[in-house]
Amino acid sequence: MLAPHPTWQDIAAEKKQTIDDKIPPEWRVTKEQLENKKVVDLPRTCGLMTDRELSITELSAVEILAAIQTQKLTAVETTAAFCKRAAIAHQATNCLSEILFKEALQQAAKLDEYMLVHGKPMGILHGLPISVKEHIKLKDTPATSALIAWANDASDEDALIVKTFREQGAVFHVKTTNPQTLMALETVSNLFGRTTNPHNTNLTCGGSTGGEGALLAMGGSPLGIGTDIGGSIRVPSAFCGVYGFKPTISRLPHSGLSGLSDGMQNLVGVVGPLARCIEDLELFCVAGLNQEPWKYEPSLIEMPWRPNTTTPQKLKIGVIWCDGVVQPHPPILRALKHLVSALEDDGHNVIDWDTSLHKEIYDITNEIYFLDGGAEYHQRLEEGKEPAVSIVKWLLDEKAVRSYTVEDTWNVNSRLDRLRTLYAHQWNTYDIDAIICPANASVASAHDESRYWGYTCVFNALDFPAAIIPVGTVEKTDTWSQFPPMSASSLNPKDEWYRSLYDDGKGPLRYEGAPVSIQITGRRFHDEEVLRITSRIQNLLLKKAAIGLVDQPIKSRQT
Amino acid sequence: MLAPHPTWQDIAAEKKQTIDDKIPPEWRVTKEQLENKKVVDLPRTCGLMTDRELSITELSAVEILAAIQTQKLTAVETTAAFCKRAAIAHQATNCLSEILFKEALQQAAKLDEYMLVHGKPMGILHGLPISVKEHIKLKDTPATSALIAWANDASDEDALIVKTFREQGAVFHVKTTNPQTLMALETVSNLFGRTTNPHNTNLTCGGSTGGEGALLAMGGSPLGIGTDIGGSIRVPSAFCGVYGFKPTISRLPHSGLSGLSDGMQNLVGVVGPLARCIEDLELFCVAGLNQEPWKYEPSLIEMPWRPNTTTPQKLKIGVIWCDGVVQPHPPILRALKHLVSALEDDGHNVIDWDTSLHKEIYDITNEIYFLDGGAEYHQRLEEGKEPAVSIVKWLLDEKAVRSYTVEDTWNVNSRLDRLRTLYAHQWNTYDIDAIICPANASVASAHDESRYWGYTCVFNALDFPAAIIPVGTVEKTDTWSQFPPMSASSLNPKDEWYRSLYDDGKGPLRYEGAPVSIQITGRRFHDEEVLRITSRIQNLLLKKAAIGLVDQPIKSRQT
Repeated sequence: MLAPHPTWQDIAAEKKQTIDDKIPPEWRVTKEQLENKKVVDLPRTCGLMTDRELSITELSAVEILAAIQTQKLTAVETTAAFCKRAAIAHQATNCLSEILFKEALQQAAKLDEYMLVHGKPMGILHGLPISVKEHIKLKDTPATSALIAWANDASDEDALIVKTFREQGAVFHVKTTNPQTLMALETVSNLFGRTTNPHNTNLTCGGSTGGEGALLAMGGSPLGIGTDIGGSIRVPSAFCGVYGFKPTISRLPHSGLSGLSDGMQNLVGVVGPLARCIEDLELFCVAGLNQEPWKYEPSLIEMPWRPNTTTPQKLKIGVIWCDGVVQPHPPILRALKHLVSALEDDGHNVIDWDTSLHKEIYDITNEIYFLDGGAEYHQRLEEGKEPAVSIVKWLLDEKAVRSYTVEDTWNVNSRLDRLRTLYAHQWNTYDIDAIICPANASVASAHDESRYWGYTCVFNALDFPAAIIPVGTVEKTDTWSQFPPMSASSLNPKDEWYRSLYDDGKGPLRYEGAPVSIQITGRRFHDEEVLRITSRIQNLLLKKAAIGLVDQPIKSRQT
Repeated sequence: MLAPHPTWQDIAAEKKQTIDDKIPPEWRVTKEQLENKKVVDLPRTCGLMTDRELSITELSAVEILAAIQTQKLTAVETTAAFCKRAAIAHQATNCLSEILFKEALQQAAKLDEYMLVHGKPMGILHGLPISVKEHIKLKDTPATSALIAWANDASDEDALIVKTFREQGAVFHVKTTNPQTLMALETVSNLFGRTTNPHNTNLTCGGSTGGEGALLAMGGSPLGIGTDIGGSIRVPSAFCGVYGFKPTISRLPHSGLSGLSDGMQNLVGVVGPLARCIEDLELFCVAGLNQEPWKYEPSLIEMPWRPNTTTPQKLKIGVIWCDGVVQPHPPILRALKHLVSALEDDGHNVIDWDTSLHKEIYDITNEIYFLDGGAEYHQRLEEGKEPAVSIVKWLLDEKAVRSYTVEDTWNVNSRLDRLRTLYAHQWNTYDIDAIICPANASVASAHDESRYWGYTCVFNALDFPAAIIPVGTVEKTDTWSQFPPMSASSLNPKDEWYRSLYDDGKGPLRYEGAPVSIQITGRRFHDEEVLRITSRIQNLLLKKAAIGLVDQPIKSRQT
């Protein structure tokens, strides 16, 4: 029970306690088991999970659905296994904002009953546990955007993506953390504390869909619902070594989110999946569009998923080595080099992609994030009587500098439209099928050091669908001397700072264990092509054994 | 030559002279021929056009293209005939802002040459004269939005719709008038003067694509390019008795327009056709999408035209008798009643459509038109040292009342989004195929009396594709006593004023000769279905002989 005028510390403590109380004593790991900075193996090493539970939680979503449909698994057994694994993941990384084990098991039991009575599944997601990013509304649970002011605001109804998944048989077992105000590439807040990277807890899991990143990396969920307006699905996917996909705006259901800047249209976010294989990214899209969501959310485009999309046998791919603003770190350059070699060896045409438009697009994106000069951000923090956490304070001080007039916002739109048009011309000129590029200048950053999002937000501004796949782990030989930057001198103070984070000797140690990932992006509305090409790229890498895959429970499979 | 500091009167006089000078003496009608308020027959009665010229200019666009392709017509002969008829139309209604006869004939000659050399047309619009609304950019001609300040601003390049039509063989013979600032449902400006309705010059041709409405009604063009953000294609189509279509936003090319509020995204306009039959409306859409314009204009949706769209045999149609704000006049009620009977007799299901959301949507639309409090409007008028014309002054005084903050605009967006969602739910609940409704509360208004756009702008706000077809002419028996309003008492001061415009005795005389039209609208992105249903409705009316078609050169044909 809170005091009549609780402080933000009181509210946060109660929140933490509420979450903690829902983890049964028999699912608790020991203090000693959490001492290692690498906790990703904990579910397999802690002794709490049976072999069968481990096997179940290492299946892909598509495999789980097939097993339930053929009655090799029940929804209850599946859900229970993922609940236990999610509980372990939370103890290791602080990735959950809401525990719904009881509700999930009840729902799973109903689904098993349904299967028994009807002899068929309720829908294509029958019995699949799905985790939900905190600010996406799930009826009767809070959606707070990690704001103290909204700490106990239970949602009246499901977000449309949740509703459509629920109607197709999904089971929601947990909600996952996101950062204060959502506007950060790390996951830290006064309300939930900090979520860490299970590959190396000294590093961030990324943000804003950071809880999902950590949870999926630890196998606590087969599929997660995230959101992305600047990299919020892709950065945690890349930092945690899982798969992520940012669809084109207005394809998948997007209504029913808590958050700031509600009604802002200059740049719109998307809902999308984090998963443990490419097949499951596509499953998410198929299920998201299965029930004609455009009939219920008028801003969506009536464009069903096109499962039979093909791509040219010989691909033409643009590669971005550096966006001209911040030089990517050596592990990323290595991964790109390997990938380009593999593509060329396979007969594809890879060209260096001119990024001269990126800086201006990046700058405009930053203008758009804070058209009100950050007024609403400050207001919500004040309402909760809480300070901005360090990374959010930095962001507001650096980027939320002035309040725009209506005319100013029109001008921003026109400038962005011009850049989009120029980018389209560039694409037409070179007639490429996709771009491969870094997901971030860095692999998982150390805490409070994620301060550049140009490799992701540019594709929000361009509204290009973009996927993330893990292709390796930081290696000892990933040094500047082995993989020198494109430009010997630093490009600007931000670039200089980023370079300094990865000193030759210290870099590989500092980022030890961090996954290395690649981003694949394509034309607006070519979501299906992007996933198809991503899948082909992964198959190629697997075939060529050009990569050592990230150590993770699920092996990427041929699709 | 203008004086060093020309007044707006000087600039307007020079503009008028420039246009006038391009009409050859042999194409001039006499003063006496212009004395009748009904001038729509003038091309046939003035003695300037040969029978063959009349026949050519009374073909539909589709028929013209077929005739050119089979070499029954040349592009030059076709263009020359339309130039002459456009010259007559201009003398009768002041509908042209730019005369391009010379350039058009040169282009037509090139096309004939192309056909001779290659034995095939350049594209699907080979040799078709097309007229262009004034503010749509056409290389080397001014696009002024009827502003003195921009009177001589020649465009650097073609708008994308012009470019794509040009590349497919279109010939641009004229540009047509639009009102000062574009923001009016009439067509009057200091720069171009007033464009009148050829069915009754005491009435307005409507706006803002008013020049097109008048020109097409007189047969001076087979196909016109218009724009619509509140009714600007549909109102002139309805007032002039021609066909019009407002497509879904971001389907057809929209880049390359002059105008105010550039970059404003809260509500976006569309480019669409005015034509003389439904088939030609569809031709416009097919040609507009033929060259994958989404590759060049990134805001467009990659959604090709779907020519094989079908509609249910038995339709379910919602009918709007009154939007709850302004009661439509008797001729419109009569037309709706006849149409409903015809639909019901044919076995379709017609239900009364609840319009309780319309008022709020209408109000929000008006907020969005002037988010900057009209600042830019006043600024542009001041730059040209010109006063606002009466209808624009009224609009700015009445609607452009306050300047919004960025947060206010987000709030407007959220409110509109909520209403769109409610409207979608209503549509889902009744599961209709289309709505039939008035295009306006009135048939063609008397000058300066078009002061309500709720019957059109609501479908901009909802982004529903909407077509206009002519179904008759005002009749002597169109009285309030014959066709009483839905509510005996007036609904509000605006409704009261509109009712008073149509007094029982005076109404039929006041609006003598005015076409009566119907609007057909459907779900967002269902452009093809809307045109298909519009065509079925027209066929039904023709079959039932339930209507006397407007007197116009081209008879509507079965499609």
